[in-house]
Amino acid sequence: MSEYLIAREELEFLLWDWLDLAEDCGDAIDRESADAILDLSARLAASAFLPHYKTADRIEPYQNESGVLALPEIGAALREYAALGLFSASFPPELRGLGLPSLLANASFAQFLAANVSTAAYVMLTTANARLLAAFGNPAQIEQFALPQIEGRWFGTMCLSEPQAGSNLGDVATRAVADGEDALGERYRLTGNKMWISGGDHDLSENIVHLVLAKVAAPGAPPAEGTRGLSLFVVPKILPSGERNDVAVAGLNHKMGYRGTTNCLLNLGEGEGAIGWIVGPPGQGLPQMFKMMNEARIGVALGAAALGYRGYRHALVYARERTQGRPFGAGGGPSQAIIGHPDVRDMLLAAKCYAEGALALVLYCAKLVDRAEEDVEAEALLGLLTPIAKTWASEYGLAANDIAIQVHGGYGYTRDFDVEQLWRDNRLNTIHEGTTGIQALDLVGRKLRDGAALALLRGRIAQTAIAAAALPTLAGHALVLDAWWQRIADAVETLRDAGPGGMAANATALLRAFGHGVVGWQWLDRALLSVDAPEDAFRSGKLWACRYFFERELPKIDAWLRPIAAGSDIGAAVPAEFL
Amino acid sequence: MSEYLIAREELEFLLWDWLDLAEDCGDAIDRESADAILDLSARLAASAFLPHYKTADRIEPYQNESGVLALPEIGAALREYAALGLFSASFPPELRGLGLPSLLANASFAQFLAANVSTAAYVMLTTANARLLAAFGNPAQIEQFALPQIEGRWFGTMCLSEPQAGSNLGDVATRAVADGEDALGERYRLTGNKMWISGGDHDLSENIVHLVLAKVAAPGAPPAEGTRGLSLFVVPKILPSGERNDVAVAGLNHKMGYRGTTNCLLNLGEGEGAIGWIVGPPGQGLPQMFKMMNEARIGVALGAAALGYRGYRHALVYARERTQGRPFGAGGGPSQAIIGHPDVRDMLLAAKCYAEGALALVLYCAKLVDRAEEDVEAEALLGLLTPIAKTWASEYGLAANDIAIQVHGGYGYTRDFDVEQLWRDNRLNTIHEGTTGIQALDLVGRKLRDGAALALLRGRIAQTAIAAAALPTLAGHALVLDAWWQRIADAVETLRDAGPGGMAANATALLRAFGHGVVGWQWLDRALLSVDAPEDAFRSGKLWACRYFFERELPKIDAWLRPIAAGSDIGAAVPAEFL
Repeated sequence: MSEYLIAREELEFLLWDWLDLAEDCGDAIDRESADAILDLSARLAASAFLPHYKTADRIEPYQNESGVLALPEIGAALREYAALGLFSASFPPELRGLGLPSLLANASFAQFLAANVSTAAYVMLTTANARLLAAFGNPAQIEQFALPQIEGRWFGTMCLSEPQAGSNLGDVATRAVADGEDALGERYRLTGNKMWISGGDHDLSENIVHLVLAKVAAPGAPPAEGTRGLSLFVVPKILPSGERNDVAVAGLNHKMGYRGTTNCLLNLGEGEGAIGWIVGPPGQGLPQMFKMMNEARIGVALGAAALGYRGYRHALVYARERTQGRPFGAGGGPSQAIIGHPDVRDMLLAAKCYAEGALALVLYCAKLVDRAEEDVEAEALLGLLTPIAKTWASEYGLAANDIAIQVHGGYGYTRDFDVEQLWRDNRLNTIHEGTTGIQALDLVGRKLRDGAALALLRGRIAQTAIAAAALPTLAGHALVLDAWWQRIADAVETLRDAGPGGMAANATALLRAFGHGVVGWQWLDRALLSVDAPEDAFRSGKLWACRYFFERELPKIDAWLRPIAAGSDIGAAVPAEFL
Repeated sequence: MSEYLIAREELEFLLWDWLDLAEDCGDAIDRESADAILDLSARLAASAFLPHYKTADRIEPYQNESGVLALPEIGAALREYAALGLFSASFPPELRGLGLPSLLANASFAQFLAANVSTAAYVMLTTANARLLAAFGNPAQIEQFALPQIEGRWFGTMCLSEPQAGSNLGDVATRAVADGEDALGERYRLTGNKMWISGGDHDLSENIVHLVLAKVAAPGAPPAEGTRGLSLFVVPKILPSGERNDVAVAGLNHKMGYRGTTNCLLNLGEGEGAIGWIVGPPGQGLPQMFKMMNEARIGVALGAAALGYRGYRHALVYARERTQGRPFGAGGGPSQAIIGHPDVRDMLLAAKCYAEGALALVLYCAKLVDRAEEDVEAEALLGLLTPIAKTWASEYGLAANDIAIQVHGGYGYTRDFDVEQLWRDNRLNTIHEGTTGIQALDLVGRKLRDGAALALLRGRIAQTAIAAAALPTLAGHALVLDAWWQRIADAVETLRDAGPGGMAANATALLRAFGHGVVGWQWLDRALLSVDAPEDAFRSGKLWACRYFFERELPKIDAWLRPIAAGSDIGAAVPAEFL
């Protein structure tokens, strides 16, 4: 178990004390079993995922005539992961899964993301694919394509983007032409180019299952415009017959991070068309994807939080070991550990707020996933908080990684240390699975369109504030939090009346203010659990982090909200030729 | 000339309209000659520096038994640069220099930094070295070591840091033992390890001139503690006799950016001791270095600004070309260039404020360098603004590079585009030549210790505000600027009385507030030049950028100052064991 991964104490605090994992587990899993899962995850992450973190960055995937080849250590780690049944962690027993609640499965998975985000990404893609098939596929498709993924023998991909269709999936041009029916359902021939396909090809698993967004079209006819015709197809690399499907790797994308995760441009149908079976009814591709989108975005957020958290731990260890300089104002004396410098401690507090705050926010969402099935309030809150978690964790996880470099000084930007790679890896997370701008439009244009979800959220915030108001050390924070939320709610109202330009020009600012407001609330909520333990270093740390967030982070909200209150729409108003 | 380098219109606006380059040039250089220098710089940067930008990142320097080998294109570009006499640009004619004012020389050099920061870094190191020798060396040393650098035949280094002595040079342990005297002055034998030596070894120039900070010591005796004994020595790689000096490369640092600039751990004196000649009197090493520090820091700031500027240009070109999505709220229609999205324009405005604001701030300082010789006010302002320029340009240049990635979406994090490399390159700049934390202590502990320099600055700000107050479109900004500066000045007063802990815990926050205040002032100052040109796209762009900075950037100051006003010292107060 590595000191750089997620502290066991942190996970126990979040899962049991803060998020009441017992409720999610019900009778199915007791504390001892949950602890065993966490132990196992920490050990395997440290022994099989962490050791090739830098190697996978240095030795990138490459392509030869047989396809794309990845670092063998990645395959070895994932085989160990599969052998322990962890691909199946969050699937129900009827799908041969361990049946872990989402909260526990995410806590387990966070260790692997912290240890090696690009190796763990294959798991994320595979389980997302299998879950989509399990939700919408027919029994034969589930048997044929989902189960081998749940066992971790086959890996999966999501083929949405195309070179000309990234954020806007309505422009997808991949065509699917009907080609009869067989035991797996209605068969189609697919033709098109899919870009940014993570895990799009590699030699790590026996087969690769692509889930492809395409438009049903009559032979020779153009596909429908917009998103209406979009349907989902399951397109395996190797067909059940054992033959290769008509899916070719047209190129590899070389990224600055996540380098161990192959990323491909795939050509479907260079010959007679790639064979695929439609998943669910035609025209349902987008709603099907959206049903999975919350989870995919929370997965990205979890990776971003885990990267940020690991950066914070590296910085902390380094700051305790590295000696440099004397106390400011002292004439001489021995050189001190740099954690003695207030500026360094200030940076570490910020990184702690970001990293632990992001991890907590994402696990809070994972808890909502567990509740959402039977609790419409949880479902609404999950929808509201998903763009927040995606954005906040990726922006502030990255900020924690940036601080980790700064704390290391010159050593931080060398490849002798891990912190520069953590920073590069994390830079992808504000972009993939929907950029920050897309998250902001989702928040403002969809999740806040009616006030119901916000009212629920404010109800939960009020509960925290009321509890904090009764405690002398936290009562001030409760007042401050309430004041900020009043202003955030005012801004939501203002934007609702602002028209498309004003809304689009301010959505990101509102998202950022909202994110800080949510994380501030959650810091206060965790501080409530810590006030009674002044001698406990871990709990005291939570109180200090909460104080830091209220003193130095929440005031940033003003800069995001002030232009909204003033009716600024400068991004919409500025003529493009003046840029 | 590349569309990604610094626009000629930008430089002309800053140099002639805003900073009155004519004053710096005096009778020595007319506008035509200055224009010719700028033309030449833009052409050479595009033809010789830009083409190997990515190659030098991919093919790193390596070491064999002959020493460190760098990419040949770097040497070829620098030979062209030398052939045009540009190494000598800012040196006076008596040192065989072109005698350009610092302002013009920096504007010229900015193009090379924008085109290829790691190739240009050799120039920066070499001219800084030669300038130090010219200031403090004896005539024989200048003849022997400075002139070949001014000609660009030999390159130079600055050997300050050691593995255990980075920010704190008092811990330097390299020893210099007297070894007689010769025509070059008092000769010493040096023994020690020097870390982070940019350009420390390579095969790009005929010789390498190291300027080494070391402590004079009697044979066998320990060197003095602290900074008192520090002296400066000139230590060539190849001695005037043609023999190799006792300077060995112990290792190369592999960095995430500036990869074309070799960066070495040097061992001095593995044998009998490296031969070096003392520069100036003993014990003057630190004051000598500090005399050059303003310039070195402005050099780093210029590189950071140039990188940010180039990132902005890349984003702008991409946003005009890439089509994706429809206007928010529109049902359909053709896909639009992404610059049509208000969120993208908002990002571009921010990047414009950062990149152009940083470049302007650094050139403002270069102007102060020109004035400082004869104008004590300029000298005081230069001292005050140097930590601001270093920090603001490196933090917000990086922010501009971050935005450039975001505007490119997924393409931004691939190595097919330049923006990810610009971001990696720029990440070094908040660390080398003094971290942000060091700049903050310099500002608070030294530059603001008496109020004289701040009073001068506020006088200049008041001039701008008075002029703006007379114009209906800018009068509001004038009031806002004045209000923020009142608060910044209050925070300076508060910190002066805060004691070492409170001061150290808040110095960085004050530095950031101060930086935004300075850049806001300068945006308003440039807006004054633009109000009369509503049809001019370039000038209108300045007005929009100024408005953006006042609407969306200046409010951030509050979050930095509020904790200071509240007496927060959380970075000093938090016990290290709670982190």
